[in-house]
Amino acid sequence: MRATMLYGKGDVRFEDVAEPTIQKPTDAVIRLAASCVCGSDLWPYRGLQPVDQPQAMGHEYCGVVEAVGDDVTSVKPGDFVVGSFVLSDNTCPHCNHGFQSSCQQREFMTGAQAPIARVPLADGTLVALPAQPDEDLIPSLLAVSDVYGTGYFAADAAGVKPGMTVAVVGDGAVGLMAVLSAKQMGADRIIAMSRHKSRQDLALEFGATDIVTERGEEGIAKILELTDGVGADAVMECVGTETSMKQAMYGARPGGSIGFVGVPHGVTFDGQELFFAQRKLLGGPAPVRRFLPDLIDQVLRREINPGKVFDLHIPLEDVAEGYRAMDERRAIKTLLRV
Amino acid sequence: MRATMLYGKGDVRFEDVAEPTIQKPTDAVIRLAASCVCGSDLWPYRGLQPVDQPQAMGHEYCGVVEAVGDDVTSVKPGDFVVGSFVLSDNTCPHCNHGFQSSCQQREFMTGAQAPIARVPLADGTLVALPAQPDEDLIPSLLAVSDVYGTGYFAADAAGVKPGMTVAVVGDGAVGLMAVLSAKQMGADRIIAMSRHKSRQDLALEFGATDIVTERGEEGIAKILELTDGVGADAVMECVGTETSMKQAMYGARPGGSIGFVGVPHGVTFDGQELFFAQRKLLGGPAPVRRFLPDLIDQVLRREINPGKVFDLHIPLEDVAEGYRAMDERRAIKTLLRV
Repeated sequence: MRATMLYGKGDVRFEDVAEPTIQKPTDAVIRLAASCVCGSDLWPYRGLQPVDQPQAMGHEYCGVVEAVGDDVTSVKPGDFVVGSFVLSDNTCPHCNHGFQSSCQQREFMTGAQAPIARVPLADGTLVALPAQPDEDLIPSLLAVSDVYGTGYFAADAAGVKPGMTVAVVGDGAVGLMAVLSAKQMGADRIIAMSRHKSRQDLALEFGATDIVTERGEEGIAKILELTDGVGADAVMECVGTETSMKQAMYGARPGGSIGFVGVPHGVTFDGQELFFAQRKLLGGPAPVRRFLPDLIDQVLRREINPGKVFDLHIPLEDVAEGYRAMDERRAIKTLLRV
Repeated sequence: MRATMLYGKGDVRFEDVAEPTIQKPTDAVIRLAASCVCGSDLWPYRGLQPVDQPQAMGHEYCGVVEAVGDDVTSVKPGDFVVGSFVLSDNTCPHCNHGFQSSCQQREFMTGAQAPIARVPLADGTLVALPAQPDEDLIPSLLAVSDVYGTGYFAADAAGVKPGMTVAVVGDGAVGLMAVLSAKQMGADRIIAMSRHKSRQDLALEFGATDIVTERGEEGIAKILELTDGVGADAVMECVGTETSMKQAMYGARPGGSIGFVGVPHGVTFDGQELFFAQRKLLGGPAPVRRFLPDLIDQVLRREINPGKVFDLHIPLEDVAEGYRAMDERRAIKTLLRV
C-alpha cells in the first residue's frame, strides 16, 4: 500500500510501505474511513522539531476493524471503531484516574495517514460503535479521535461549568473545537480570540458569543474590558507559544483556570509570577479515551458537528498538498479521503 | 511604643516607633493578644530579599479592637478579632470568588510584631469572635491568621478530599499546618517529608501516617514506593525551592494536584515538561479570609490545636532571638508574648 512519510522539513511523500499486520496479541489492524492532518504534524514539517529518519505520519483515525490479535476482546473484525491518538491499556491506575494519556503503557499512534493502520493496545484504545455510521458522520467521528477530544480536554482541564464566562486563545482547529466544547459544557459567554474571518465565522457557529481580534497585551486588555475588569473564569490555551500562554494567564481571573493543550514550544513559567498570579494550570496530551464514549454519542445523536472544522477535503494521495494548505493557512484542517 | 524593625541582613531591632492611629475611615487599630515570626520574614532576614529601608515587621495577628475608622461597621472597640495577613475589602469580584489574596484593593499587613497595630480595610479583613476567647486558645487563633490559613489553602488548592493519599513537602510550620489541614479535610493517608525528629513527631500528632526522610530524586522514589508506583493524589508544596517543587511535581500522580504556598525563589517551570507531566498547579498567597470563619470555629470548638506549631514562646522584646532561633532551626516557629 501507499502511505504518508515525512522525510524532513517540507518533505511529505506518499509512497509504498509494507502493509501493517498484527504484531502483538493486543493489536488491531483497521481500514481507515478517513484520515487527516494535525496541527502538531506541522511542527516537524516546518523544521521546528527534528526529523532524524523518515516518519510514518498520522495519528487521527476511525474505521473498520480488519483483524485483531489473540488477546483482543472488546472489538472484532467488521466493527466500526474510533480510537484516541494516545494508545492506552485503560486498566492501569493512571487510566482509571481518567488520565489515559499518562497510561503506564502509553504509546502514541502513528501511521494513520494511510488506508490501513495498526493500533496497538486495541482493547484500551478503541471504542466500537453499535453499528456502521452514516457516511456524513465520518468527519465528525474522525474529529473525536484527536482534535475535538483535545478541545474537549482543554475545556475540561479549565473546569468549564454551566454559566461561566470563558475565553479561547487560538483559532486553529483545536481552538475552534474548544469553543464547541465550552458550549457543550454550558458556558454562558465564550470569547474567541481570532483575526481570520472564516475562523471567526466557524467560532460563532460553534457557540462563540464574542470575538477578540487583538493579541498580546491588547488582547488581554480586551478580555478584561469584556469582563468588567475581572477576567474569564476559564481559559483554553490552544497554541503553545509564550505569547498565547501569557494571554491565557492574564485573560483568566485570579483563581481562574487555564487548560492548555497547545504543545508548548519555548514556553517557561516563572515560579514567583505564577504564584502571585494565582491561576490554576492543567495541560497535556488529551486523555481522549476518557471522553470517547460521550463524544461519539454527541455525534451519533447529531447534537454537534465537529467535522465542520475540516474545510479542505482531498484524496489521501494528495496529502502533501494537505500539509501545504495548512502550513500556508489556506486551510484550517485537511481531511484525507481514503 | 516599641516595635520590631528590620534594618538589613540579620539586623532585627526592637525600638521606639510612633503608636499606630486611625489613618483612613476603613482602618482599625488593635491591641495584639500575641504575635509571631513567619518563615517568610526569614527571606529578608537572611539577605535573600533586599531591604532598602528599615521595615516594620510582622503580619500575623489577633487581639482586641481599640479604635475603628468612621466607615467600619463589622467590628467595634472591645471585640476580639482575627485577621488575614492579606488585607482585602471582601466585596470585589476576586474576593467574592474566594480569592481575597488577589483583592482589587489588596495590601499586605505589616507592623504586627508590636503591641499595637493598624489594620487597613478592617471590615473586609477582620472577623470578630462571639466573645473573648480563653487564654489558652490565643496561640491557635494567632496561627489561623497566616500559618494555619496558608497550610489550609495548600490543601484546598491541591483539592484534598476524603479518602485521598496526599504528600506534604516541607516540615516547616506551614508544612506541619498542611498536614493538619489534610487531616481536617479527611485525607486517608498523609505522607510528611521530614528529616527532623521533633518535626516528625509533630507531623504524626497532626495526622501524618507516613514519614519520608529522603529528599530530591530519592524522596520522589520513596513516595512512589509508598503508593504502588502511582504517586499521591494531591501534594502540598510548602518550601518554594526548585528541589521542593520537583519533589511535589513528581510525587503527585498524573492528573494529580499540587497546591504550592512556599513563595518560589529561583523556581521556573518548563512549559513542555509541565505539559507532559499533566499535573495541576495552583498556588499563591493564601486567601485566608475565605477560610477564617471556619478555621476560627475549629479552634473555638477545640477540635484542633494548630497553636502547637509554636515551639518557642518568648517576650516580644526578645524578638531578635525569635528570628535567630528560627534561622538556626532551633525553633519551628516563635510566638511573641505581647
